[in-house]
Amino acid sequence: MFYHNKKLQYFKPPEKPDAVYAMKIQELIGGTFGEMTVMMQYLFQGWNCRGPAKYRDLLLDTGTEEIGHIEMLATTIAHLLDKAPLRLQEEGARDAVVGAVMGGSKPGDVINDVIAAAMNPQHAIVSGLGATPSDSVGYPWNGRFIVSSGNLLADFRSNLHAESQGRLQAVRLYEMTNDRGVKDTLSFMIARDTMHQNQWLAAIEDLESSGLETTPVPSSFPLDLEKREFAYQFWNHSEGTESAEGRWAKGPSMDGKGEFEYVAQPQPLGPEPEPPQTPIQLHGTPKTQQQQKTQGNGSSAPPLVESVTVKNPEV
Amino acid sequence: MFYHNKKLQYFKPPEKPDAVYAMKIQELIGGTFGEMTVMMQYLFQGWNCRGPAKYRDLLLDTGTEEIGHIEMLATTIAHLLDKAPLRLQEEGARDAVVGAVMGGSKPGDVINDVIAAAMNPQHAIVSGLGATPSDSVGYPWNGRFIVSSGNLLADFRSNLHAESQGRLQAVRLYEMTNDRGVKDTLSFMIARDTMHQNQWLAAIEDLESSGLETTPVPSSFPLDLEKREFAYQFWNHSEGTESAEGRWAKGPSMDGKGEFEYVAQPQPLGPEPEPPQTPIQLHGTPKTQQQQKTQGNGSSAPPLVESVTVKNPEV
Amino acid sequence: MFYHNKKLQYFKPPEKPDAVYAMKIQELIGGTFGEMTVMMQYLFQGWNCRGPAKYRDLLLDTGTEEIGHIEMLATTIAHLLDKAPLRLQEEGARDAVVGAVMGGSKPGDVINDVIAAAMNPQHAIVSGLGATPSDSVGYPWNGRFIVSSGNLLADFRSNLHAESQGRLQAVRLYEMTNDRGVKDTLSFMIARDTMHQNQWLAAIEDLESSGLETTPVPSSFPLDLEKREFAYQFWNHSEGTESAEGRWAKGPSMDGKGEFEYVAQPQPLGPEPEPPQTPIQLHGTPKTQQQQKTQGNGSSAPPLVESVTVKNPEV
Amino acid sequence: MFYHNKKLQYFKPPEKPDAVYAMKIQELIGGTFGEMTVMMQYLFQGWNCRGPAKYRDLLLDTGTEEIGHIEMLATTIAHLLDKAPLRLQEEGARDAVVGAVMGGSKPGDVINDVIAAAMNPQHAIVSGLGATPSDSVGYPWNGRFIVSSGNLLADFRSNLHAESQGRLQAVRLYEMTNDRGVKDTLSFMIARDTMHQNQWLAAIEDLESSGLETTPVPSSFPLDLEKREFAYQFWNHSEGTESAEGRWAKGPSMDGKGEFEYVAQPQPLGPEPEPPQTPIQLHGTPKTQQQQKTQGNGSSAPPLVESVTVKNPEV
Amino acid sequence: MFYHNKKLQYFKPPEKPDAVYAMKIQELIGGTFGEMTVMMQYLFQGWNCRGPAKYRDLLLDTGTEEIGHIEMLATTIAHLLDKAPLRLQEEGARDAVVGAVMGGSKPGDVINDVIAAAMNPQHAIVSGLGATPSDSVGYPWNGRFIVSSGNLLADFRSNLHAESQGRLQAVRLYEMTNDRGVKDTLSFMIARDTMHQNQWLAAIEDLESSGLETTPVPSSFPLDLEKREFAYQFWNHSEGTESAEGRWAKGPSMDGKGEFEYVAQPQPLGPEPEPPQTPIQLHGTPKTQQQQKTQGNGSSAPPLVESVTVKNPEV
Amino acid sequence: MFYHNKKLQYFKPPEKPDAVYAMKIQELIGGTFGEMTVMMQYLFQGWNCRGPAKYRDLLLDTGTEEIGHIEMLATTIAHLLDKAPLRLQEEGARDAVVGAVMGGSKPGDVINDVIAAAMNPQHAIVSGLGATPSDSVGYPWNGRFIVSSGNLLADFRSNLHAESQGRLQAVRLYEMTNDRGVKDTLSFMIARDTMHQNQWLAAIEDLESSGLETTPVPSSFPLDLEKREFAYQFWNHSEGTESAEGRWAKGPSMDGKGEFEYVAQPQPLGPEPEPPQTPIQLHGTPKTQQQQKTQGNGSSAPPLVESVTVKNPEV
Repeated sequence: MFYHNKKLQYFKPPEKPDAVYAMKIQELIGGTFGEMTVMMQYLFQGWNCRGPAKYRDLLLDTGTEEIGHIEMLATTIAHLLDKAPLRLQEEGARDAVVGAVMGGSKPGDVINDVIAAAMNPQHAIVSGLGATPSDSVGYPWNGRFIVSSGNLLADFRSNLHAESQGRLQAVRLYEMTNDRGVKDTLSFMIARDTMHQNQWLAAIEDLESSGLETTPVPSSFPLDLEKREFAYQFWNHSEGTESAEGRWAKGPSMDGKGEFEYVAQPQPLGPEPEPPQTPIQLHGTPKTQQQQKTQGNGSSAPPLVESVTVKNPEV
Repeated sequence: MFYHNKKLQYFKPPEKPDAVYAMKIQELIGGTFGEMTVMMQYLFQGWNCRGPAKYRDLLLDTGTEEIGHIEMLATTIAHLLDKAPLRLQEEGARDAVVGAVMGGSKPGDVINDVIAAAMNPQHAIVSGLGATPSDSVGYPWNGRFIVSSGNLLADFRSNLHAESQGRLQAVRLYEMTNDRGVKDTLSFMIARDTMHQNQWLAAIEDLESSGLETTPVPSSFPLDLEKREFAYQFWNHSEGTESAEGRWAKGPSMDGKGEFEYVAQPQPLGPEPEPPQTPIQLHGTPKTQQQQKTQGNGSSAPPLVESVTVKNPEV
Repeated sequence: MFYHNKKLQYFKPPEKPDAVYAMKIQELIGGTFGEMTVMMQYLFQGWNCRGPAKYRDLLLDTGTEEIGHIEMLATTIAHLLDKAPLRLQEEGARDAVVGAVMGGSKPGDVINDVIAAAMNPQHAIVSGLGATPSDSVGYPWNGRFIVSSGNLLADFRSNLHAESQGRLQAVRLYEMTNDRGVKDTLSFMIARDTMHQNQWLAAIEDLESSGLETTPVPSSFPLDLEKREFAYQFWNHSEGTESAEGRWAKGPSMDGKGEFEYVAQPQPLGPEPEPPQTPIQLHGTPKTQQQQKTQGNGSSAPPLVESVTVKNPEV
Repeated sequence: MFYHNKKLQYFKPPEKPDAVYAMKIQELIGGTFGEMTVMMQYLFQGWNCRGPAKYRDLLLDTGTEEIGHIEMLATTIAHLLDKAPLRLQEEGARDAVVGAVMGGSKPGDVINDVIAAAMNPQHAIVSGLGATPSDSVGYPWNGRFIVSSGNLLADFRSNLHAESQGRLQAVRLYEMTNDRGVKDTLSFMIARDTMHQNQWLAAIEDLESSGLETTPVPSSFPLDLEKREFAYQFWNHSEGTESAEGRWAKGPSMDGKGEFEYVAQPQPLGPEPEPPQTPIQLHGTPKTQQQQKTQGNGSSAPPLVESVTVKNPEV
Repeated sequence: MFYHNKKLQYFKPPEKPDAVYAMKIQELIGGTFGEMTVMMQYLFQGWNCRGPAKYRDLLLDTGTEEIGHIEMLATTIAHLLDKAPLRLQEEGARDAVVGAVMGGSKPGDVINDVIAAAMNPQHAIVSGLGATPSDSVGYPWNGRFIVSSGNLLADFRSNLHAESQGRLQAVRLYEMTNDRGVKDTLSFMIARDTMHQNQWLAAIEDLESSGLETTPVPSSFPLDLEKREFAYQFWNHSEGTESAEGRWAKGPSMDGKGEFEYVAQPQPLGPEPEPPQTPIQLHGTPKTQQQQKTQGNGSSAPPLVESVTVKNPEV
Repeated sequence: MFYHNKKLQYFKPPEKPDAVYAMKIQELIGGTFGEMTVMMQYLFQGWNCRGPAKYRDLLLDTGTEEIGHIEMLATTIAHLLDKAPLRLQEEGARDAVVGAVMGGSKPGDVINDVIAAAMNPQHAIVSGLGATPSDSVGYPWNGRFIVSSGNLLADFRSNLHAESQGRLQAVRLYEMTNDRGVKDTLSFMIARDTMHQNQWLAAIEDLESSGLETTPVPSSFPLDLEKREFAYQFWNHSEGTESAEGRWAKGPSMDGKGEFEYVAQPQPLGPEPEPPQTPIQLHGTPKTQQQQKTQGNGSSAPPLVESVTVKNPEV
């Protein structure tokens, strides 16, 4: 069960409105690696967690914090959208600007038209200058953005990756504005991303040292059930061998259970595929016309293929 | 530019058809962590790579291998869908089975009805017993499943997470069948996933030891631009403290640049939000009726808010 | 900023597992009118609210409650998925059942196969028997399911509709199970939906009596700017007139500002459309070949249509 | 069965082209609350209607009218896209403009570049300057935008909400242009939205007075099956009590069947969740390593969990 | 503007309910090639048509007919969903059946459980046994399923392909049932698909013989602007040459403007790609550490890359 | 199995960067008819092909070529995004430009702001100036864009339509730039599209002359099973008869099996629909209140509708 405190976790108001930047910073709310993703991912992982209580609590604490991050960004966006220009200027108004240019004013006023044309139209039409649950091109957040697998090592790696992409995007947005208010708020969020990257690295170490999970995920699957001879080979699928120069091409494998091997000219191990013919009732194109013909008058007559497992249905 | 060898990288045919399992194994083709994802993710990362040539080659070699994995799975699915029952049996036919039961046959024959009812209908109607670019519930693969950021540490972590979830899912599907052919093919793919988990761990080590990237991602962002005082705090957003027991709650941070701190009772640092009022032209609900009234007759008359940046437009 | 209490708002465990029902009840988490929808809708409306503080608080209180509803349902689903059958039984096993039938046992054992075939495969493969952010057919929740417009009357009506569809769906799921644990948990949620329907009806009355908003939404738009002569006409677009029998066909309009009128044989008021010809550079099919020909050699030569607003660019 | 009249229900041509506005007005065709939504929603509700004939006819008449609304908007968009600038001007051309500025012409000519850059690219590349079935950011309309539940009170409330959001958006678009042709066409559509809001309010009154449906939806569910003690409580999930000031916090409930109650400090009524452990075959992380170990060698050996309902399968 | 006739274009009621088949036949309403697709595709093509009036009328006539096809299918689905079993039977009930088996009744009664488990849950929970705007796996129809390009030859080919896939799917569904009512209704729809395939073939001939469009689409693009030397080559991207045996590998090209040529061992004509380095502000991984270092302290200081076209911004 | 050659099939670098055009040309990668579509469509059709080997090889050769087309376009986009302006200029900087105007410089410098505002924000934030698997409005490619039906005539027609729309879009993009590098690369791709249109026309002729498939698709369905009397009628669903003037309205049908007929005033052949009442457990609105009342107290008591096929379950 959840509670709300009316104050924000952190916030500095933007110095001035910027409706185009409001559109861009939506990436941090509803993008693939936005706050909706980490919030939902950590909450679902926590709710589904069957592991030790400390991991469940870790996940739910962090997921709960992330709800408040959406709140901070939504507030930022409301300020950035303040006074957003809602339509292109009249030709007459633009002429006036031209006159002004001659008298000393600035052609840069066309910037209002740029903003009116390029801002996310839904910020005006749909949300009335509020944040939306979508990314910087207006694509809505969706549930396939998150994963909760029940295997904590797999999931902590997912969390680490989400925080890495997330901090990268926050940093890029930091670079894409000069507004000191926005930069201040982002510098708090970037710091929290630093913590969360460290946190999931720590959680991985904690989990691996507990012996519950190791590489390869899932470690509870007996290794002798996989084809071990292919478990440490790098297959070079191109004509050059630059890929032979890395750590992955030779030396002991990272899981300590094998030795990397570089296969410079890999060859197929399987046959050419021969998918079975489809039944006439599905009207796919067969291999030869003969087959088609003998089936030609049969569509209504012959029984459908009835059985998967039974060899002699007439018994 | 790409070339095709008509043979499969590896393949064992299923022992017998199983249309329901065909539906399930679609997860490995078109699911969030299926082969379409790793193929497209590695190819786009390779095409977009500005880093050292060995990383670009690594990415494109592996992406090229994954195209062949879809091919293997598509062939497997074609075999699993062979002779799929396309409709429920007639009542009369089912009665015959009943008679047979009395005479020694098996009520299990209803299994054909189960399969006809539960298989993915699009395997019959849309693809004519072929594989489709969708997951185990028929949801289509889409481009938001992948990421290519240009930051190789962020991306290698994404790749590690994809291979972790991917191997976990392949293992689960291995457990969900007794078909020795399918299990054999999967045991090859699981081994390749073992390699790929090791490979991305090795690529991370390779990249970090090269000095090009370190934690936190992106490491090229000056740390003094983030609010350092919050960069190593764990905020406990719940009433209990199980989350205090982990590696992430105390001790040196994983990046070696700070010390973890546990904040047991975190308090908000920001104010209550006060989003600015929206212009009357957007017809949002204002704080007080007064405001609404004074604007009441204005919709067609007053000029729109025109300017974001200019203070004195009439100059 | 948000906090988490580790206890559930309400909960009774299911009496026994039922993986097929687990799939169905996902509709209440990630469906169009599931808890993710109401949670996100109320939170975004609250964050974007510029109206009186009591409405903002109303929205955020209720949105915060709904996070806990997802938590309750996720827990219910974890219990329903317990011991889910992960694959069809072996033929041999089924034969054993057959023998048992002869000896007095039950053919209903095939029910395990039914469940293994019909349950959501992603509950096993992707989430490891945990809830997912998707609906009863596995389609992911997405941000287009919610609305936050800034106009509170429009939004409260959206909330009323969401709670109406939501309670209807919860009631249908109540009818679709005999499990007393599930029914008990649902009877709590259905009661909350009763409150929320009443609550939004009350909020609408509260808002309308405050004078801030009335029908038609948005009431701040001057009515004389719409074509009033068509604002209360019912157009009968079919050959019969059953639709003339309702309250909407005659009498004073609901907003008290007009009189309903029934137009039995409506005629078009506009002309036939004549979309303008497209420029040759877009290679659409023109009205006549002549036009095409004169443009035929021009594609690389003539300047593109350059200007929208300027009549004499060469001046 | 349907018929087409080649004339439009209503139409005034735009005064001049405006490709950016063409992009924005797409919201009224393919947006969440656009004409495709109301058309499809009313038609499906009509086709699925089992209630009195007058409601079915009401729904199909209105749905049929809405098809024509898409037609009007598509025609409007074709005119707005006329002569759309398809690429940025040459540097040379721009220099010429500069010279002209010096001689008295206008820097506003850059507006063509603004439009070429900001218009929906698919209006040129995909549709050849025609309307598309998508919203103002190019996101396609989809079937989850509509609902047809079979419960007419639930559905009429959905219709009322759709027309409220729809009229709000049409009004906003009216405010976002000065084109008298577009404004005229919109003022017709806004008037129809006024009718449709009134119409669904009337249909709700008609339905409720018929006794077929009342609040709470669905009214045919016996109230004693829900937990009545929670059916009129407002839970205050935050530290302040602004939410206590509204109609929803005290007094008789809107359905006349209870009394609102304000719970200032709500406490959880349920236990901490304890999701059951997952079977080893799914390789989730268990609570303790011990469990994992004893299962460690079992993956291929022990039988899968077979049964949901049968206690003694070996009988 | 559109009108509705309350009678169906054609209809025979199903002989008996079949909720699983109701799920499958949804493919013909909301699938990629269902009636919603052809209806919307023809209407949008008609509304956007700038070609001769006969084509516009052809498109709108056929699009209007297709609305009625959805109506027929929705009615069929309502009948198929009649009396749909809404939950699995009680264990007790199933035991009774078992007893009955011993006494002469049928184990096939489990078929109700099969249907209750495998039918589309949304047919019960969401639509109350009505049709939905989605396909046979519950995925919603969306606007990207259709195309309206303004080039009639391109679009008529799209229509031909849609009717080909559509008739194929209708035929498969015809084969997947024994219900004479359903088969009768489908045999009408299949006949209409025959007409529509013929119709689009005729429209293509009509259009090509008019001289407005020919192969290759778009024919108004001067052929000398494409690299003619590659316009008739077949590139063999695999090691075998089965693909040399077809009509496409030799002889005059279909457009009569060239000669097919088979390139057995195609070689790349371009260089290795060298994407330019990204600016430090985007924090991508550079080619060498050196570069990264020199940029290391600059993130806040140096100006962003400012200009695309201007060489000397300081002038 | 697949191999990669590090060189591009063809490539000319763009003359200069153009971030807005980079956004637009994404349509050719991830749009409905982009290279991802043809690549995936041909590969899946090839993998699923049961027809003669030459068709399978044709499909896989062409699909393999298309992978390389994505590679070419991704490289083009990387060059176009070079030096993309990442934020609007400072007001001060813009003032400096103004001063420059007075001194002879150009107001066109605002073009950088236009580009910074209108480019796809994800090209900066998400991909770090690399290509993405999405279209020109940022919508991701998805698996529903392709079809592989197993019927080769249906599929070759799909391929012909894809190449027609694809070439049309490539030509439009050719017209929308003056960059000679981009135009050169596109002129290669347009030539390949010319080949591919010819190729699928040739494949259709090859297939039809082989006797394996003819019109109407699927030709293996006995024609006497469709309602032949409606198989060649054109139904005029509007009040005018422009549609009577085309090849489809009279004369022999294209399949040579019938005669076109024009039905000027088509009438419905079916009855008014009467969908059956839904069970009380789904709480839909019934036809009359009476029905509702008798069911009123029953919700928990009476058994659910149990059986679809069994008339006397108590026997």
